[in-house]
Amino acid sequence: MIDLALIGIGTGNVDHLTAQAARAMNHADLILLPRKGDAKSDLIDLRRALCGQVLTVPVRVVEFDLPVRDAGDTDYLGAVQDWHAAIAELWRAQIAVHLPDGGSVALLIWGDPSLYDSSLRIADRLAQAGMDVAVRVIPGITSIQALTAAHAIPLNRLGGPVVITTGRMLRAHGWPPGADTVVVMLDGGCAFDTLPPDRISIWWGAYLGMAQEALIHGPLADVAPRIAAERAALRARHGWIMDVYLMRKDQSDAG
Amino acid sequence: MIDLALIGIGTGNVDHLTAQAARAMNHADLILLPRKGDAKSDLIDLRRALCGQVLTVPVRVVEFDLPVRDAGDTDYLGAVQDWHAAIAELWRAQIAVHLPDGGSVALLIWGDPSLYDSSLRIADRLAQAGMDVAVRVIPGITSIQALTAAHAIPLNRLGGPVVITTGRMLRAHGWPPGADTVVVMLDGGCAFDTLPPDRISIWWGAYLGMAQEALIHGPLADVAPRIAAERAALRARHGWIMDVYLMRKDQSDAG
Repeated sequence: MIDLALIGIGTGNVDHLTAQAARAMNHADLILLPRKGDAKSDLIDLRRALCGQVLTVPVRVVEFDLPVRDAGDTDYLGAVQDWHAAIAELWRAQIAVHLPDGGSVALLIWGDPSLYDSSLRIADRLAQAGMDVAVRVIPGITSIQALTAAHAIPLNRLGGPVVITTGRMLRAHGWPPGADTVVVMLDGGCAFDTLPPDRISIWWGAYLGMAQEALIHGPLADVAPRIAAERAALRARHGWIMDVYLMRKDQSDAG
Repeated sequence: MIDLALIGIGTGNVDHLTAQAARAMNHADLILLPRKGDAKSDLIDLRRALCGQVLTVPVRVVEFDLPVRDAGDTDYLGAVQDWHAAIAELWRAQIAVHLPDGGSVALLIWGDPSLYDSSLRIADRLAQAGMDVAVRVIPGITSIQALTAAHAIPLNRLGGPVVITTGRMLRAHGWPPGADTVVVMLDGGCAFDTLPPDRISIWWGAYLGMAQEALIHGPLADVAPRIAAERAALRARHGWIMDVYLMRKDQSDAG
């Protein structure tokens, strides 16, 4: 019997960790730390540092390499499914080696396990493959919350709705119909450049909660080039970037 | 000079508190605890208990009564604006009495200060009225995160968008155009009853993270009456209810 805890750890700032997350880390028999290749080595360093700061008892921490998703595959969802299957097999193998008699294993999830993270779907594959596994989810502060906190802005307009979407969706479908506030995640570029920028304000943030945190906000028409330039410069300097942004129709336009 | 910290405290479970939130509470000169009337006395009790559990140094904790919003006013946004103005004046008065020479004041915000919470807007009114105030936001676990964690489900479908909206908006406008996943907050009733229920699944939760936590999920057509009955029974038993739900179009329909 495997107890699998998916622990939201926020955006790399140990101060974002909840009491529940810290306790779950300390109660685990095994913490698995996946490595995603050299470019994002800062991220594995942050997880290692987090373990060092949070663990007050000895817990076995095991690192392993993740496969790289085939970004050239034109079948996006198919490539993601293949990638999940490969990761599930790696989890299974690590658990079999390190917990042959069962026990509790923890994975440290960037942000919150519910939001644009595949761990729940990968865990489902373990159950479907016959593993006797119970999954527990421990919420964590998302990059959206870190963004709105850093800018000290509300996510929603008074009583208004919010759309959370991806760079891919924004590029493919434009501004979501009827939306007032749109948050864009997983944007590998600057999908906001595909929008007519009039009467839209943007609040952008990168490396939220980390030492490298960068923030820009203003009318999209004015600041879009600055965000694109800053994004490219930061990516070149650090070797990787994680960013998120919120866009809002200006009030006069929202009615 | 007033340093105003808006501290997200999650949904009443002290384990949801982040290290950052606990530290901000302990560093405050004054914590203001608004009372919202008898019906929700559990909520002020939870905040009192939280202070008792989290504060490791003496911090002045002051309770005061909030006005009741005029629910009969047909001008919803106008009534909310009036209510915010009244609350801002109460904050100002409490701060003037207890911190005449300035200092740091903290407010404990249910969930996260960015999400369907008016504290940022009320704080803006203090600045507009001439108070020398610096606002800091400390993120907290939202009821949406507590909901998805309790059900162990992702918020979004793989790469898909999410709409967060209110019971009021759902009643007025129906299912948001093009939406796959819809989260409904601030629903004083059962706005899901206004939807054609076919091919929609619902995950509902009340008192999330608390001892009274209640969860129901299933096809909307099957479980809607059960949720409505359970909601009424729980509300009668506890005198108040806070709930949230996620609805998703079944895959066959989402394409």
